[in-house]
Amino acid sequence: MSELAKRKCVPCEEGGEPLNPDQVEVLMQQLSPEWMLIDQHRMLARTFRFKNFQEALDMANKIGKIAEEENHHPDLTVAWGSLGVELMTHAMDGLSENDFIVAAKIDELK
Amino acid sequence: MSELAKRKCVPCEEGGEPLNPDQVEVLMQQLSPEWMLIDQHRMLARTFRFKNFQEALDMANKIGKIAEEENHHPDLTVAWGSLGVELMTHAMDGLSENDFIVAAKIDELK
Repeated sequence: MSELAKRKCVPCEEGGEPLNPDQVEVLMQQLSPEWMLIDQHRMLARTFRFKNFQEALDMANKIGKIAEEENHHPDLTVAWGSLGVELMTHAMDGLSENDFIVAAKIDELK
Repeated sequence: MSELAKRKCVPCEEGGEPLNPDQVEVLMQQLSPEWMLIDQHRMLARTFRFKNFQEALDMANKIGKIAEEENHHPDLTVAWGSLGVELMTHAMDGLSENDFIVAAKIDELK
Protein backbone atom coordinates (compact mmCIF):
# COMPACT_ATOMS: atom_id res chain seq x y z
CA MET A 1 0.00 0.00 0.00
CA SER A 2 1.28 3.49 -0.82
CA GLU A 3 2.23 5.87 1.98
CA LEU A 4 -0.58 8.15 0.87
CA ALA A 5 -3.15 5.35 1.03
CA LYS A 6 -2.21 4.62 4.65
CA ARG A 7 -3.05 8.13 5.78
CA LYS A 8 -6.41 9.37 7.09
CA CYS A 9 -8.31 12.41 5.95
CA VAL A 10 -8.47 15.32 8.37
CA PRO A 11 -11.54 17.58 8.71
CA CYS A 12 -11.58 20.24 6.01
CA GLU A 13 -10.76 23.72 7.19
CA GLU A 14 -13.27 26.19 5.80
CA GLY A 15 -11.46 28.90 3.90
CA GLY A 16 -8.11 27.08 4.13
CA GLU A 17 -5.62 27.35 1.31
CA PRO A 18 -5.64 24.65 -1.35
CA LEU A 19 -2.39 22.90 -2.27
CA ASN A 20 -0.05 24.89 -4.48
CA PRO A 21 1.09 23.53 -7.88
CA ASP A 22 4.39 22.19 -6.49
CA GLN A 23 2.62 20.29 -3.74
CA VAL A 24 0.10 18.93 -6.24
CA GLU A 25 2.91 17.79 -8.53
CA VAL A 26 4.60 15.81 -5.75
CA LEU A 27 1.37 14.11 -4.71
CA MET A 28 0.35 13.31 -8.30
CA GLN A 29 3.45 11.14 -8.59
CA GLN A 30 2.13 8.93 -5.82
CA LEU A 31 -1.15 8.21 -7.63
CA SER A 32 -2.00 5.89 -10.51
CA PRO A 33 -1.22 7.66 -13.83
CA GLU A 34 -4.91 7.40 -14.77
CA TRP A 35 -5.71 10.36 -12.50
CA MET A 36 -5.91 13.69 -14.27
CA LEU A 37 -5.95 17.26 -13.05
CA ILE A 38 -8.96 19.09 -14.47
CA ASP A 39 -10.87 22.34 -13.95
CA GLN A 40 -7.67 24.43 -13.88
CA HIS A 41 -5.97 21.99 -11.50
CA ARG A 42 -8.71 22.39 -8.90
CA MET A 43 -10.01 18.83 -9.31
CA LEU A 44 -8.73 15.26 -9.60
CA ALA A 45 -10.58 13.02 -12.07
CA ARG A 46 -10.34 9.40 -13.10
CA THR A 47 -12.54 7.23 -15.29
CA PHE A 48 -12.80 3.48 -14.78
CA ARG A 49 -14.02 1.22 -17.60
CA PHE A 50 -16.15 -1.85 -16.96
CA LYS A 51 -17.92 -4.58 -18.87
CA ASN A 52 -21.40 -3.48 -17.85
CA PHE A 53 -23.48 -1.25 -15.57
CA GLN A 54 -23.44 -3.43 -12.46
CA GLU A 55 -19.64 -3.58 -12.29
CA ALA A 56 -19.52 0.22 -12.45
CA LEU A 57 -22.11 0.43 -9.65
CA ASP A 58 -20.18 -2.13 -7.58
CA MET A 59 -17.07 0.03 -7.84
CA ALA A 60 -19.13 3.11 -6.86
CA ASN A 61 -20.14 1.25 -3.69
CA LYS A 62 -16.53 0.34 -2.88
CA ILE A 63 -15.50 3.96 -3.33
CA GLY A 64 -18.53 5.07 -1.31
CA LYS A 65 -17.30 2.96 1.60
CA ILE A 66 -13.91 4.73 1.51
CA ALA A 67 -15.66 8.10 1.26
CA GLU A 68 -17.79 7.39 4.31
CA GLU A 69 -14.82 6.11 6.32
CA GLU A 70 -12.82 9.23 5.47
CA ASN A 71 -15.78 11.59 5.53
CA HIS A 72 -14.52 12.99 2.23
CA HIS A 73 -16.77 12.37 -0.74
CA PRO A 74 -16.12 12.35 -4.47
CA ASP A 75 -18.72 12.83 -7.15
CA LEU A 76 -19.34 9.51 -8.87
CA THR A 77 -20.91 9.16 -12.31
CA VAL A 78 -22.16 5.63 -12.91
CA ALA A 79 -22.95 4.74 -16.53
CA TRP A 80 -23.14 1.55 -18.55
CA GLY A 81 -19.51 0.43 -18.72
CA SER A 82 -17.86 3.33 -16.92
CA LEU A 83 -17.48 5.10 -13.61
CA GLY A 84 -16.27 8.67 -13.40
CA VAL A 85 -14.69 9.87 -10.16
CA GLU A 86 -14.13 13.54 -9.34
CA LEU A 87 -12.42 14.73 -6.17
CA MET A 88 -12.02 18.24 -4.86
CA THR A 89 -12.20 20.04 -1.52
CA HIS A 90 -15.16 22.38 -1.82
CA ALA A 91 -14.28 24.24 1.40
CA MET A 92 -11.04 25.32 -0.29
CA ASP A 93 -12.32 25.51 -3.87
CA GLY A 94 -9.37 23.36 -4.85
CA LEU A 95 -7.30 20.33 -3.95
CA SER A 96 -6.26 19.34 -0.44
CA GLU A 97 -4.27 16.37 0.81
CA ASN A 98 -7.61 14.72 1.61
CA ASP A 99 -8.32 14.42 -2.11
CA PHE A 100 -5.03 12.65 -2.71
CA ILE A 101 -5.52 10.37 0.30
CA VAL A 102 -8.92 9.25 -1.00
CA ALA A 103 -7.54 8.88 -4.55
CA ALA A 104 -4.69 6.72 -3.24
CA LYS A 105 -7.14 4.52 -1.35
CA ILE A 106 -9.23 4.17 -4.52
CA ASP A 107 -6.05 3.10 -6.33
CA GLU A 108 -5.72 0.24 -3.83
CA LEU A 109 -9.14 -1.16 -4.78
CA LYS A 110 -9.25 -4.23 -6.98
CA MET B 1 -48.64 2.24 -9.45
CA SER B 2 -48.91 4.19 -12.71
CA GLU B 3 -49.76 2.38 -15.95
CA LEU B 4 -46.31 3.31 -17.25
CA ALA B 5 -44.56 1.85 -14.21
CA LYS B 6 -46.29 -1.50 -14.77
CA ARG B 7 -44.85 -1.88 -18.27
CA LYS B 8 -41.58 -3.61 -19.19
CA CYS B 9 -38.83 -2.21 -21.39
CA VAL B 10 -38.40 -3.79 -24.81
CA PRO B 11 -35.00 -4.27 -26.45
CA CYS B 12 -33.83 -1.07 -28.12
CA GLU B 13 -34.00 -1.09 -31.89
CA GLU B 14 -30.75 0.22 -33.34
CA GLY B 15 -31.48 3.14 -35.63
CA GLY B 16 -35.15 3.26 -34.60
CA GLU B 17 -36.96 6.57 -34.46
CA PRO B 18 -37.11 8.39 -31.14
CA LEU B 19 -40.47 9.57 -29.82
CA ASN B 20 -41.83 12.70 -31.43
CA PRO B 21 -42.64 15.82 -29.34
CA ASP B 22 -46.35 14.98 -29.09
CA GLN B 23 -45.62 11.49 -27.82
CA VAL B 24 -43.10 12.89 -25.35
CA GLU B 25 -45.65 15.41 -24.10
CA VAL B 26 -48.24 12.71 -23.38
CA LEU B 27 -45.74 10.53 -21.53
CA MET B 28 -44.32 13.45 -19.51
CA GLN B 29 -47.76 13.91 -17.95
CA GLN B 30 -47.51 10.43 -16.47
CA LEU B 31 -44.23 11.18 -14.66
CA SER B 32 -43.45 13.06 -11.49
CA PRO B 33 -43.19 16.81 -12.27
CA GLU B 34 -39.55 16.74 -11.08
CA TRP B 35 -38.49 15.19 -14.40
CA MET B 36 -37.18 17.65 -16.95
CA LEU B 37 -36.50 17.40 -20.66
CA ILE B 38 -32.93 18.47 -21.41
CA ASP B 39 -30.43 18.33 -24.28
CA GLN B 40 -32.99 19.57 -26.83
CA HIS B 41 -35.63 17.14 -25.55
CA ARG B 42 -33.40 14.14 -26.19
CA MET B 43 -32.93 13.32 -22.52
CA LEU B 44 -34.94 12.98 -19.32
CA ALA B 45 -33.29 14.26 -16.15
CA ARG B 46 -34.20 14.39 -12.50
CA THR B 47 -32.22 15.37 -9.40
CA PHE B 48 -32.98 13.89 -6.00
CA ARG B 49 -31.84 15.66 -2.82
CA PHE B 50 -30.67 13.77 0.25
CA LYS B 51 -29.28 14.43 3.71
CA ASN B 52 -25.86 12.93 2.98
CA PHE B 53 -23.76 10.85 0.58
CA GLN B 54 -24.87 7.40 1.68
CA GLU B 55 -28.56 8.11 1.09
CA ALA B 56 -27.75 9.25 -2.45
CA LEU B 57 -25.73 6.06 -3.02
CA ASP B 58 -28.55 3.95 -1.58
CA MET B 59 -30.96 5.49 -4.09
CA ALA B 60 -28.44 4.85 -6.88
CA ASN B 61 -28.48 1.17 -5.91
CA LYS B 62 -32.28 1.04 -5.95
CA ILE B 63 -32.33 2.63 -9.40
CA GLY B 64 -29.54 0.29 -10.50
CA LYS B 65 -31.74 -2.67 -9.61
CA ILE B 66 -34.52 -1.33 -11.85
CA ALA B 67 -32.00 -0.65 -14.62
CA GLU B 68 -30.69 -4.21 -14.49
CA GLU B 69 -34.18 -5.70 -14.43
CA GLU B 70 -35.20 -3.64 -17.45
CA ASN B 71 -31.80 -3.80 -19.15
CA HIS B 72 -32.10 -0.06 -19.70
CA HIS B 73 -29.56 2.03 -17.83
CA PRO B 74 -29.52 5.68 -16.82
CA ASP B 75 -26.43 7.69 -16.00
CA LEU B 76 -26.33 8.32 -12.25
CA THR B 77 -24.31 11.07 -10.62
CA VAL B 78 -23.85 10.44 -6.91
CA ALA B 79 -22.68 13.41 -4.86
CA TRP B 80 -22.88 14.46 -1.24
CA GLY B 81 -26.60 15.19 -0.77
CA SER B 82 -27.79 14.63 -4.31
CA LEU B 83 -28.31 12.06 -7.03
CA GLY B 84 -28.65 13.07 -10.66
CA VAL B 85 -30.46 10.71 -13.03
CA GLU B 86 -30.27 11.02 -16.82
CA LEU B 87 -32.17 8.77 -19.19
CA MET B 88 -31.95 8.51 -22.94
CA THR B 89 -31.95 5.79 -25.59
CA HIS B 90 -28.51 5.96 -27.16
CA ALA B 91 -29.47 3.62 -30.02
CA MET B 92 -32.00 6.25 -31.12
CA ASP B 93 -30.09 9.34 -29.99
CA GLY B 94 -33.25 10.44 -28.21
CA LEU B 95 -36.11 9.30 -26.02
CA SER B 96 -37.98 6.02 -26.33
CA GLU B 97 -40.81 4.58 -24.28
CA ASN B 98 -38.17 2.62 -22.37
CA ASP B 99 -36.88 5.86 -20.85
CA PHE B 100 -40.35 6.75 -19.61
CA ILE B 101 -40.97 3.25 -18.28
CA VAL B 102 -37.75 3.37 -16.23
CA ALA B 103 -38.53 6.94 -15.08
CA ALA B 104 -42.00 5.83 -13.95
CA LYS B 105 -40.52 2.91 -12.01
CA ILE B 106 -38.05 5.31 -10.36
CA ASP B 107 -41.02 7.49 -9.38
CA GLU B 108 -42.46 4.50 -7.50
CA LEU B 109 -39.36 4.19 -5.30
CA LYS B 110 -39.60 5.44 -1.75
